[in-house]
Amino acid sequence: MTVFERLPAWRQARATQVRAGLTLGFVPTMGALHDGHVSLVRRSQAENDCTLVSIFVNPAQFEDATDFAKYPRTLDGDLRILQGEGVDYVLAPSESDLYPDGFRYRVTEIERSKGLEGAHRPGHFDGVLTVVLKLLQIASAERAYFGEKDWQQLNLVRGLVEAFFLPTSIVACQTIREADGLALSSRNRRLGSKDRERASQFYRILSVALTADAASHKLREAGFIVDYVTDCQGRRLGAVRLGDVRLIDNVPLGETR
Amino acid sequence: MTVFERLPAWRQARATQVRAGLTLGFVPTMGALHDGHVSLVRRSQAENDCTLVSIFVNPAQFEDATDFAKYPRTLDGDLRILQGEGVDYVLAPSESDLYPDGFRYRVTEIERSKGLEGAHRPGHFDGVLTVVLKLLQIASAERAYFGEKDWQQLNLVRGLVEAFFLPTSIVACQTIREADGLALSSRNRRLGSKDRERASQFYRILSVALTADAASHKLREAGFIVDYVTDCQGRRLGAVRLGDVRLIDNVPLGETR
Repeated sequence: MTVFERLPAWRQARATQVRAGLTLGFVPTMGALHDGHVSLVRRSQAENDCTLVSIFVNPAQFEDATDFAKYPRTLDGDLRILQGEGVDYVLAPSESDLYPDGFRYRVTEIERSKGLEGAHRPGHFDGVLTVVLKLLQIASAERAYFGEKDWQQLNLVRGLVEAFFLPTSIVACQTIREADGLALSSRNRRLGSKDRERASQFYRILSVALTADAASHKLREAGFIVDYVTDCQGRRLGAVRLGDVRLIDNVPLGETR
Repeated sequence: MTVFERLPAWRQARATQVRAGLTLGFVPTMGALHDGHVSLVRRSQAENDCTLVSIFVNPAQFEDATDFAKYPRTLDGDLRILQGEGVDYVLAPSESDLYPDGFRYRVTEIERSKGLEGAHRPGHFDGVLTVVLKLLQIASAERAYFGEKDWQQLNLVRGLVEAFFLPTSIVACQTIREADGLALSSRNRRLGSKDRERASQFYRILSVALTADAASHKLREAGFIVDYVTDCQGRRLGAVRLGDVRLIDNVPLGETR
């Protein structure tokens, strides 16, 4: 496994792969890897000649400096996981390498980024779309892998690729869950044991409540602070908080009983 | 000369060129071609195996609907000029092809786009940067050619390429002028004969005035409405109006006498 900390070295390696006709799958991450990321990696390995995983905690997408500071950073463990999975390449760039412009240039989406997560995290999707555009250009991959857990993000990234005619196909991968249903997330490790137990009800309630309003009500009864629960285009999306840990999830409405 | 009105056909042609190892130079235009554009085309032809010229009057960069409506559209004449120059490819896409997103996705620059032209044309550079990013992705060229007449635009496009790691080199080309010094511009053809005569003083005064303030003063005396004249990083930039026609120009400060 080759770890690139600087962009030019990676770009040179990618140019060599392209000349050799090798296809690339790209898995962008913020590190703190879990089995959800591993599922993206395995899918990429199955569909491409090589796989690149990027690890970069993107300051531009944290509207809250505390959340950025508290975001788990576990680079050594991450690299062990990726090595164990037989990943070919890791890109772990510095902020100044990725933002030579100091975040002066931004990509923004003016409608669908404004509701749901965008309403609760102003500026969040500007940061996401900006860094994803940068990373997709740098990776120069045939395919890039995103989890369905971040449903709104996934759809905004699909729109980004269409709007700017990017040559990379976006591949959506199913949410990976703990045995009790909790969607895997790097933020889960910040849950205390009592909140961790409570958190399992998030998925269950989202899935079984008859309406979005009923789900909100049941979640509040179960001790969650509810940012939103909405049914939208065949999907129920929700965001809740337990203490200072914020969780999001979504389920297809067909599964709702 | 092959004229592409649809993007997929062009992209297929470009893929074939890339496989054949052919380099491409790209000249984005809004049509109404003049000798300034021709100089870009010739430079591209000298430096690349093939040349693509795009013709698209970009609604997103006109903050004023009247200016957009009045912008000269001369497609037949443009194609004759390009054919005469031996251009290989022309791309003349529709608005819906270029904006499948309906301009929901935008590129913005938050500092250097806000002064000068940006101050007088709010939103203008968002439209420019957004369409340039789209076109650079579609063209997939080794080099793209921009005129120095639009100095602020040229620098913002350079920044765009750096910020998003685009694989295209931006080549700056000298402003082409009429015999009396007036910088060639598609808007010049909208000047009446009296204003056309007056317009020649714009370049002369920008070049000879000792200070930016002195240039503003002389331009007003000569009958121009002055939007701005500023000395900035070794360059004097100005924007003036004659009736409803707006002219911009810039000169290196070294040439100031």
